[in-house]
Amino acid sequence: MKTQLEYAREGIVTPQLKHVAEEEGIPEEVLIKKVADGSVVIPANINHTNLIPCGIGEGLRIKINANIGTSSDTGDVNTELEKLKVCIDYKADAVMDLSTGGDINAIRKTIIENCPLTIGSVPIYQALVETTASYKAVVNMTEDDLFNAIEAHCRDGMDFITVHCGITRRAVELLKYEGRVTDVVSRGGAFVIAWMLHNNKENPLYEHFDKLLEIAHKYDVTLSLGDGLRPGSTADATDRAQIEELITLGELVDRARAAGVQAMVEGPGHVPLNQIITNMQLQKTICHNAPFYVLGPLVTDIAAGYDHITGAIGGAIAATNGASFLCYVTPAEHIGLPDIEDVKNGIIASRIAAHAADIANGIPGAAERDRRMSAARKKLDWEGQKVECIDPVKFSEMRRNKQTATEACSMCGKYCAMKIVEKELGISCGDHC
Amino acid sequence: MKTQLEYAREGIVTPQLKHVAEEEGIPEEVLIKKVADGSVVIPANINHTNLIPCGIGEGLRIKINANIGTSSDTGDVNTELEKLKVCIDYKADAVMDLSTGGDINAIRKTIIENCPLTIGSVPIYQALVETTASYKAVVNMTEDDLFNAIEAHCRDGMDFITVHCGITRRAVELLKYEGRVTDVVSRGGAFVIAWMLHNNKENPLYEHFDKLLEIAHKYDVTLSLGDGLRPGSTADATDRAQIEELITLGELVDRARAAGVQAMVEGPGHVPLNQIITNMQLQKTICHNAPFYVLGPLVTDIAAGYDHITGAIGGAIAATNGASFLCYVTPAEHIGLPDIEDVKNGIIASRIAAHAADIANGIPGAAERDRRMSAARKKLDWEGQKVECIDPVKFSEMRRNKQTATEACSMCGKYCAMKIVEKELGISCGDHC
Repeated sequence: MKTQLEYAREGIVTPQLKHVAEEEGIPEEVLIKKVADGSVVIPANINHTNLIPCGIGEGLRIKINANIGTSSDTGDVNTELEKLKVCIDYKADAVMDLSTGGDINAIRKTIIENCPLTIGSVPIYQALVETTASYKAVVNMTEDDLFNAIEAHCRDGMDFITVHCGITRRAVELLKYEGRVTDVVSRGGAFVIAWMLHNNKENPLYEHFDKLLEIAHKYDVTLSLGDGLRPGSTADATDRAQIEELITLGELVDRARAAGVQAMVEGPGHVPLNQIITNMQLQKTICHNAPFYVLGPLVTDIAAGYDHITGAIGGAIAATNGASFLCYVTPAEHIGLPDIEDVKNGIIASRIAAHAADIANGIPGAAERDRRMSAARKKLDWEGQKVECIDPVKFSEMRRNKQTATEACSMCGKYCAMKIVEKELGISCGDHC
Repeated sequence: MKTQLEYAREGIVTPQLKHVAEEEGIPEEVLIKKVADGSVVIPANINHTNLIPCGIGEGLRIKINANIGTSSDTGDVNTELEKLKVCIDYKADAVMDLSTGGDINAIRKTIIENCPLTIGSVPIYQALVETTASYKAVVNMTEDDLFNAIEAHCRDGMDFITVHCGITRRAVELLKYEGRVTDVVSRGGAFVIAWMLHNNKENPLYEHFDKLLEIAHKYDVTLSLGDGLRPGSTADATDRAQIEELITLGELVDRARAAGVQAMVEGPGHVPLNQIITNMQLQKTICHNAPFYVLGPLVTDIAAGYDHITGAIGGAIAATNGASFLCYVTPAEHIGLPDIEDVKNGIIASRIAAHAADIANGIPGAAERDRRMSAARKKLDWEGQKVECIDPVKFSEMRRNKQTATEACSMCGKYCAMKIVEKELGISCGDHC
């Protein structure tokens, strides 16, 4: 059994690589080099048989992930399957099942069965839920509990898993003296730290990283090296604890590659706009060009209820400066579990950010779509615009609700500049004022 | 009668300047130099007696504008007054009345009477509506019609007016050979061009700029030098026609300053993310540091229905790189006249962009608000978060709708990391995963 990384090193074009090259419109011989050197990953668990794979990394279209899953408070498998349908319909590239409520084993298997998208999870949640159910205190989780949960997720077909391997005792020491406003905001990271401190031990995911590599290799699971110490407020961004963890993740990227295991790196978080480029550059150099999977970044802390917008601002800048994979943020972030409408709005906002970056990055086909949209707009061709726009359903609904007496829109009505200039100059217009 | 610019040059602290210095938390002697050199404007029409003024420009908090007003299709004065209330409640810094439908003189006066915010308009719309009503064809508008409309708006109390003075015959010639996808998308610009071509004359706003300066000076109206040739699609950005117009606007900034008239410059439009910084730098150098008022920028053309997000991405980047004033974009942009909900969503998105830039720009008080918000989040202090967040009404509503069995939120429920880590480390957590 070989991984996509190993096949690429041997120059073997897998069906997955072939598919990704076609989708991206780039030659197989270009893509295979990127997979071989680790700057692109193709997460594709051998047990995720219904997967239509995508590639994540340098030179490719920016991918977006949508988190779904139950919590202890709310959610059932049918709601989660509805969310999955929204993810597919609105063109998320990947989903993560973060379920922590209900029969999470059954929910995970059902979601994977119904998911042609790249799928990921955070197995430590499973260990946590099970530990809490049996022993009461999470700090009593055994190392076996943790690795059993990881193996279960990998066996079931997760294409990538988040593992918080970079939280070392040294990083925790640094954290203690940071004077952070929000300390630790990663749930998985928080569990790991609590466990380490209570048991006075090193992080098992770091200490037994080879064991993790063995499991990941067996199923060709891509490791998404989690940022347990990411800043949860703009005030905490780019501090010593965060960067120390990143350095460790960089080392682990090399170890993963040496073991033939694909790896990407997760990043912040809440980051002031003027620190985003620095964060992207640091990750690229420290992690030897591993694909960067960012959670936002959120450029302000105050926009609860609208953090899909905050995340789209940060995500677009990140993706234009080295990030390859954007985790969506929904309007519900910081308030509660996203419902179906939140999931949709989160996906749309991330797709806008990703597409804006694709245009800026010169990705083949990206600017062409905008050109077709704008050409249709110029012609007042509303059907043509509907075909190209990011959400045809919303577009038609809004157009219907904003009745106009003319073929123009109700913003300009009979004073549509298009009409006037077209007559005089043979050229036309699409916006207002 | 002197303008704010002339008072500042003479070292006289006006009540308006005093107010702005207090609001911004900067010394009067710093602010007065910026007003004197034109890098800051304080739009304050002597006839806008209920104005609470704001400053726009270098080193100040980023300001945002919301466009309201009727169109020939829709809207009445009461709806527009409701929109104005939303602008005040959600903390727009300025509004523009762009009415082109109904009794626009009465609507304008009523809006000004009820508007403590900085207010602006595009007087050429008035000339257009009146011309159309009396002569049928807009190209038959006389130069007097145009200047009469401008004088009427200034007399009524507009603090700033958009005037498309930079569209010269040379710029129109350049435009003809650009091969643009969307040619002209500025409505005012389109009228000016149609008029110029039909009458085979130079732009009266350029040719008789001194007359314009005289009117503006009389009422201390700030000229917002409009970008009639702004790109209406990302494909058209930063082309020869756009930059030629900008060069002319730069010349006119100097002429305005020489006449004691305050001036700012309007900018694009649809701009790919990787061209925004270039656009900001060009404006700063070419327009001798005049405040830059940007319409977006929109970083993709395909997001009709969600262009408040597209605009927030571009606006945040622009405002971190030299723009001082963001014109909001609503979800209705490119589809129809915004309704009250669209106005609200447009304002919120712009405020997020402006605040993200204020943090990045190190504006006093900006990061502190985020710090308070995050400190409340860490403590699971939901009332504290409500006070600091951008939309307390939405925040409370979402919190109510996302019931949880714990004091945490329904995303993490009983697995709230905060609880676990706080116990072990005395530190806590606020986000998920």
